[in-house]
Amino acid sequence: MRMVDFIANKRDGLVHDDEHIKQFVTEYTNGSIPDYQASAWAMAVYFQGMTKEESAALTHAMAKSGDELDLSQIEGVKVDKHSTGGVGDKTTFILSPLVAAAGVPVAKMSGRGLGHTGGTIDKLEAFSGFQTEMTVDRFIDLVNEHKLALVGQTGNLTPADKKLYALRDVTATVNAMPLIASSVMSKKIAAGADGIVLDVKVGSGAFMSDLDAARELAQTMVQIGNELGRQTVAVLSDMDQPLGEMVGNSLEVKEAIDVLKGGGPKDVRDLSVRLAAHMLVLANKVDSVEAGEQLANELLQNGKALEAFRQFVERQGGDPTFVDNPEAFVKANHIIPVTAKEDGYVKQIHAAKIGQAAGHLGAGRMTKDEEIDHSVGVQVKKKRGDYVNAGDVLTYIHSNKEDVADVVKLIEESYTITKEHVEPLPLIMDEMLK
Amino acid sequence: MRMVDFIANKRDGLVHDDEHIKQFVTEYTNGSIPDYQASAWAMAVYFQGMTKEESAALTHAMAKSGDELDLSQIEGVKVDKHSTGGVGDKTTFILSPLVAAAGVPVAKMSGRGLGHTGGTIDKLEAFSGFQTEMTVDRFIDLVNEHKLALVGQTGNLTPADKKLYALRDVTATVNAMPLIASSVMSKKIAAGADGIVLDVKVGSGAFMSDLDAARELAQTMVQIGNELGRQTVAVLSDMDQPLGEMVGNSLEVKEAIDVLKGGGPKDVRDLSVRLAAHMLVLANKVDSVEAGEQLANELLQNGKALEAFRQFVERQGGDPTFVDNPEAFVKANHIIPVTAKEDGYVKQIHAAKIGQAAGHLGAGRMTKDEEIDHSVGVQVKKKRGDYVNAGDVLTYIHSNKEDVADVVKLIEESYTITKEHVEPLPLIMDEMLK
Repeated sequence: MRMVDFIANKRDGLVHDDEHIKQFVTEYTNGSIPDYQASAWAMAVYFQGMTKEESAALTHAMAKSGDELDLSQIEGVKVDKHSTGGVGDKTTFILSPLVAAAGVPVAKMSGRGLGHTGGTIDKLEAFSGFQTEMTVDRFIDLVNEHKLALVGQTGNLTPADKKLYALRDVTATVNAMPLIASSVMSKKIAAGADGIVLDVKVGSGAFMSDLDAARELAQTMVQIGNELGRQTVAVLSDMDQPLGEMVGNSLEVKEAIDVLKGGGPKDVRDLSVRLAAHMLVLANKVDSVEAGEQLANELLQNGKALEAFRQFVERQGGDPTFVDNPEAFVKANHIIPVTAKEDGYVKQIHAAKIGQAAGHLGAGRMTKDEEIDHSVGVQVKKKRGDYVNAGDVLTYIHSNKEDVADVVKLIEESYTITKEHVEPLPLIMDEMLK
Repeated sequence: MRMVDFIANKRDGLVHDDEHIKQFVTEYTNGSIPDYQASAWAMAVYFQGMTKEESAALTHAMAKSGDELDLSQIEGVKVDKHSTGGVGDKTTFILSPLVAAAGVPVAKMSGRGLGHTGGTIDKLEAFSGFQTEMTVDRFIDLVNEHKLALVGQTGNLTPADKKLYALRDVTATVNAMPLIASSVMSKKIAAGADGIVLDVKVGSGAFMSDLDAARELAQTMVQIGNELGRQTVAVLSDMDQPLGEMVGNSLEVKEAIDVLKGGGPKDVRDLSVRLAAHMLVLANKVDSVEAGEQLANELLQNGKALEAFRQFVERQGGDPTFVDNPEAFVKANHIIPVTAKEDGYVKQIHAAKIGQAAGHLGAGRMTKDEEIDHSVGVQVKKKRGDYVNAGDVLTYIHSNKEDVADVVKLIEESYTITKEHVEPLPLIMDEMLK
């Protein structure tokens, strides 16, 4: 099929054949279809959508477009968790050792990523000596022996997605629902997951600020996963304020350790437990999400999740004494309070702006080559529903520079304080099980 | 404004500012905006449309994107006619001398074009010696002195349109209504017309086969023209069968000469007279279209239009004896009849297929370098509404090759013959005056 006809078909609301989608992905990846045709097609998809069969075919073709991680040598059901991205999200550090402690293999491949804080690997490098470079064989051995290992991105996974995503980014077609869903799912599938628990964030700090749109995205991803034989469920969780208190690299790791020790902020704990419970169900360790939650809570209370984390850090070269004593992490030079200017209830904390504030402090990177600062970030002391008096501390800025006027401004802008009582919103807004 | 935001605005149904449209056209033309962004934008326009102000701004910017023909030295109101393209359309050869004979300046710039027959210049080259290369000064002098001249495309007119059209052609965005309208109008405006009469063809041989779509296109073009200070009217005319009998280069010129001599097929004559009448109104020669028709008919009857044509051909180096004796045009070697297989009324003649048939005979070209054959074409003897008996001649094929099986097949496919009486359709389906 000529590409111009493929575009015209989508423009006219027709449904693509699997074969034509495969041809498109192959030829776009190898460069025989030019960007200007792919972008016109992506815009047509924005308006006309795709059926679940089309989305699954696109996901499958993108997953097959490069190397794939073969995890068949790992015993048991490999379940992965994916978050669509939020501010202060440290659940990975909690649920990975937790699920491993329950005997479920967790074979995690992570990147560094660009954004307001570092990626999973950057954050774990807060443990001095931690490293993620290893052969795939070693990675598989580690998971078989200890149930938990983390490897840096290896091989040329989903080149079709990388190329298409970069194009969508500059052609206003990022928000095409089936393309978002296929992008996420193709990476998870190429990385070898048997089951996938999706944490779809909703709110001011999320990719999707609207609940209906987030539901549609979650539904699409769940359908794709199940269509392609990977058990997939989605949890829609609140990102209308940062998750927990800490936004920053070692700050978030510290908070995760607090939770692994049975403490920490309730929202971080509850969400981690819920996501872990879904992973335990998909791995056939428990029969119900409730039983999964019970098991997860036990593993937090009896210290087994913490111990799994400690050993994981040590196995990958990190200094485990930081787990015992998180106060030993390098601290920022300045801890600067941002205070309330008026009395009232916190109605909203624009999470993306808190993320930007952390970015301004040096917690993240915008280009691959930038260094990140592990110690800096924002500590959110007052959350939605809290009552504050003028002068109360809303957040602490952890900074290595003295002049933080721009960061203070962002944080002040992010808070909305009202006189009326504010009801807390539910942390988990919906769940999609097929 | 960043191009990605410009695209997103159109995607979201917002209205572009004039300034942003101008910036887009400038930067796309000079290459700073890449094709992959322009094509995504074009697809967004396909779905979201443009207001008449946006379409006018786009047209204006494209008209200004390269050279413009400055016709200000020509006295009087310069009125141009533009057809959206059909099969057997030879009205230009009739109405141009006709309007000139009424004292209205006709400064025509034409191309060769690709298609099932040659363009205006190709057809006029049936007069041996005819030539259209001249300086703009000479062209203007000719029009001032004799009211009619034709020049080949000169300078770099509307490069933005050329570039965008080529992109739309391979990205399934040709059919975006405001882009079609802006493309046509930018060329007419850059070519210096004060007034524009549009002949929007509707039917199986036209770009628009649907009357509603054709109405929308006509309305959009009329609005653009008037928005930009060029008096513009549109006639919607039937192209559900070829216009007149002749499809081919010198065949069409011959038929035009028949009309200039007061004969020829009624549909060709009526449409030419109607379009000429609108031109005469725009040029302030008459007060009403009816008065324009009366004047046009007079100029056909009294031979003044024919004489204007004869002199025009002679001035531009063509042999005028062909005007007096069109039988002298080089003829095709074979005249092959295609006959009816059954009795009945002609219900439809798929005009595009008749065009293709002429193309197969060598009347047109698909690439710039192909030679065209002036003598070949199709002569349509039976038209919609005619009763035929099996064995009656439907068309004559004028060919320089003996094997015309493919052409016969196309012609047979193009005819639909039924037992029921067929009412003729109106030639002029609608008119848009602002």
